[in-house]
Amino acid sequence: MEQKQVETGFKKLSEIDGRAGEEVYERLQKISPFMADYLLGSFGEICSITDIDNKTREVAVIGACTALGYAIPQLKVHIHAGLNVGLTKEEILAIINTMSAYAGFPATLNALYAAEEVFKDEGI
Amino acid sequence: MEQKQVETGFKKLSEIDGRAGEEVYERLQKISPFMADYLLGSFGEICSITDIDNKTREVAVIGACTALGYAIPQLKVHIHAGLNVGLTKEEILAIINTMSAYAGFPATLNALYAAEEVFKDEGI
Amino acid sequence: MEQKQVETGFKKLSEIDGRAGEEVYERLQKISPFMADYLLGSFGEICSITDIDNKTREVAVIGACTALGYAIPQLKVHIHAGLNVGLTKEEILAIINTMSAYAGFPATLNALYAAEEVFKDEGI
Amino acid sequence: MEQKQVETGFKKLSEIDGRAGEEVYERLQKISPFMADYLLGSFGEICSITDIDNKTREVAVIGACTALGYAIPQLKVHIHAGLNVGLTKEEILAIINTMSAYAGFPATLNALYAAEEVFKDEGI
Amino acid sequence: MEQKQVETGFKKLSEIDGRAGEEVYERLQKISPFMADYLLGSFGEICSITDIDNKTREVAVIGACTALGYAIPQLKVHIHAGLNVGLTKEEILAIINTMSAYAGFPATLNALYAAEEVFKDEGI
Amino acid sequence: MEQKQVETGFKKLSEIDGRAGEEVYERLQKISPFMADYLLGSFGEICSITDIDNKTREVAVIGACTALGYAIPQLKVHIHAGLNVGLTKEEILAIINTMSAYAGFPATLNALYAAEEVFKDEGI
Repeated sequence: MEQKQVETGFKKLSEIDGRAGEEVYERLQKISPFMADYLLGSFGEICSITDIDNKTREVAVIGACTALGYAIPQLKVHIHAGLNVGLTKEEILAIINTMSAYAGFPATLNALYAAEEVFKDEGI
Repeated sequence: MEQKQVETGFKKLSEIDGRAGEEVYERLQKISPFMADYLLGSFGEICSITDIDNKTREVAVIGACTALGYAIPQLKVHIHAGLNVGLTKEEILAIINTMSAYAGFPATLNALYAAEEVFKDEGI
Repeated sequence: MEQKQVETGFKKLSEIDGRAGEEVYERLQKISPFMADYLLGSFGEICSITDIDNKTREVAVIGACTALGYAIPQLKVHIHAGLNVGLTKEEILAIINTMSAYAGFPATLNALYAAEEVFKDEGI
Repeated sequence: MEQKQVETGFKKLSEIDGRAGEEVYERLQKISPFMADYLLGSFGEICSITDIDNKTREVAVIGACTALGYAIPQLKVHIHAGLNVGLTKEEILAIINTMSAYAGFPATLNALYAAEEVFKDEGI
Repeated sequence: MEQKQVETGFKKLSEIDGRAGEEVYERLQKISPFMADYLLGSFGEICSITDIDNKTREVAVIGACTALGYAIPQLKVHIHAGLNVGLTKEEILAIINTMSAYAGFPATLNALYAAEEVFKDEGI
Repeated sequence: MEQKQVETGFKKLSEIDGRAGEEVYERLQKISPFMADYLLGSFGEICSITDIDNKTREVAVIGACTALGYAIPQLKVHIHAGLNVGLTKEEILAIINTMSAYAGFPATLNALYAAEEVFKDEGI
């Protein structure tokens, strides 16, 4: 990735995912500097799609991370992100609950347990 | 499911998923009348969550059906539904493209191929 | 869900999943009362299918939760449930072991580790 | 695999999966003789677990192949197998429908469409 | 993505995936020009990791596309790519067969059927 | 499995997966002696495919266990195994990072966190 892309990605990451996103970046830098920068660059590119706003993007990502079942740490980052860009606790619960019809109750329940932790962490 | 729930679900299905949704119901009635009614009842219940609107719900569902990888027929129904409740072609492509970061390119590409078919079908 | 469906669901949940199921319900009520009731209602509906008995249903669910790979907390609940409705420890191990052919050894091994915990918990 | 294991596996395959299973074996022999024999040997080993009978095993496998979402060709073989070892059409539909709670409606619906084909094929 | 990244990606795509890769790019350009370019740019970045060679990368990708279960069109592209960078038919079958232990027989069998088509297509 | 297959499998397991593999076997023996022996026998059979060497096999398995998302304990065993048969830390990171394009960032990041633990454990 070009240095400029990494910087744009970091700015977007801070703006959308806040501290939770920055922690992912810092952790990755110690394991794989390539992935740290590549993730940022890709994130910046994805965020450059202006056909949907940050809120809409987080709705899709929270849905997808719930449905995948194994993406719990990333779901938590994106619940933080969702709150950060203006989704309410109620909207996030509604998105996760909707997934019960598409990915079943196990995926939904594990996502709700993750959401509970994030809400506690955010004091809401 | 209570008869009333099935009826509410059918009304919601027609309103949101349109003809594509009704065809699923009709097909299921021939294979498993239980599932046909249970699906409608569940759909009605999920749609009774008013914390998110139809558009937001379809954003999450299109994201999730893309990420699951194997839910192509259901993704098509929900791309129809998304258009039906006001999502644009560009917004739907943006949601699917975002998934490349969360579920990889194979899931995203197969979803784009499905979207292409639906857009052709809708003449857009 | 209608109040009657929730009540029927709770009775079924207590009967089949026992205390492990009730704990899921209680936990969900604190996170999302909608999901707590919706899960019960759906569970009651699924259990109203009388073409298979409780034992057969748990065989299928233990198989599926093993194969999904990420549904470990739910697998534990259903191993408790399986024992509760008359499956033996040996039958449950046989179901999980069969999954090695259909979902691979990682899914099977993680399920066996979960089963070990439940068996210890049940003192068998 | 030892020749004896392959032979035992083939006998079990014919007995349980019938013609649908034999066709898989014949097709594999042309692509990968190793896999053809390895599959038979493994199948024989799995079937040597006598803690569950053929019917119970097929219940678990039909549940799992439904939940996996992408295992449609194998699901068809095992619906044939299920019928072969004494499961009724109604029981098979009940197993698949149960999966809607554990793996969501997309996986369930695609499994029902597969079941419809097998039932037509079997003239039931 | 920067124009230079897209160009580097296209060169890498032609070199590794050959005509099968170029067809994916051309198809994507008609559905989503963003994704067409983003895929190329990402591919170029991934290929810039010089710690593994093209052959090793294709081994991992063929393994992963087999295990995912739903990535059959992409598996075909990468079987073409694998042959292109020097993997033999026997090596590709060995990679796919190994997956039976990690993702089960359904994923493996569907991958073998896909491999059969590619080998026929390549006249080997 | 024949006793001879189990013994061959154990020898292969010790040679390739080292102590991490042996621990899996010992743990399984306490939960399900059938699975302990069946796993060894299958492992021996898979390793009898001489078209690829141990290193190539581990490349595919590390890729697949990353892509599956839920196979973290098994991924750790195979990162140990990879190091054991001659893969470097850099090669393993490159394999995992490549998966971001095929299975998305959540699967990749969770695999990197697992790799970090194994590398720490190995003192590299």
